[in-house]
Amino acid sequence: MADAKASTLSEQMRRGELFAVECPSREILKHVTSRWGVLVLVALLEGTHRFSALRRKAGGVSEKMLAQTLQCLEKDGFVNRVSLPVVPPHVEYTLTPMGEEVAHKVEALADWIEENTSRIMKVQQESAV
Amino acid sequence: MADAKASTLSEQMRRGELFAVECPSREILKHVTSRWGVLVLVALLEGTHRFSALRRKAGGVSEKMLAQTLQCLEKDGFVNRVSLPVVPPHVEYTLTPMGEEVAHKVEALADWIEENTSRIMKVQQESAV
Repeated sequence: MADAKASTLSEQMRRGELFAVECPSREILKHVTSRWGVLVLVALLEGTHRFSALRRKAGGVSEKMLAQTLQCLEKDGFVNRVSLPVVPPHVEYTLTPMGEEVAHKVEALADWIEENTSRIMKVQQESAV
Repeated sequence: MADAKASTLSEQMRRGELFAVECPSREILKHVTSRWGVLVLVALLEGTHRFSALRRKAGGVSEKMLAQTLQCLEKDGFVNRVSLPVVPPHVEYTLTPMGEEVAHKVEALADWIEENTSRIMKVQQESAV
């Protein structure tokens, strides 16, 4: 268990190695915690979605921003894009097994924040006085 | 259990309420997943740190950026800043109980990404071919 843990972020940081260089893991973290990244991952945990269904869920997202978000997550290997050969075009998005893993972590963090937002806002207001 | 879950992010998203408005939870998520936010939270999980010790761990961080990061996390109620009345000034930072909770979620996500970075980079390279 100690060995398995030796390569984690917290271990690397303890050794002072992480953040000393431009680590590619920073980009991945950015993708999955972006405004629409969080939404797409959590939505897809429920199952396959069409582009239009994702867009409806993400009130305010532009077609371009949603397409970019999905493209990033596809390149990272978190989302599968399936284009069905029908007219009109029908494109579906699903989480890969790796996408499911990361989506559960993102969901846990996002849910914690959501559940504690009013508690946090109370602290913010008190410290502003 | 169903009731407890009803106020989570994923539930709100299912109802299409979240992301429809500028939610304060977005800002909090940004603070804790920022480049230096992640580092500070994970470092403080190990215990109290002085400013200079945090700065040494975060290779490349400017004094200003680290101070800003700590200030955000302090305002959110995640970090306690204790200034000891000595000469020269001695300032210590500790996680609050709420800070510990969120730090564990952030650490779980960051560790997952760190452990899977090489797997993800392999996928990225394959999809670039």
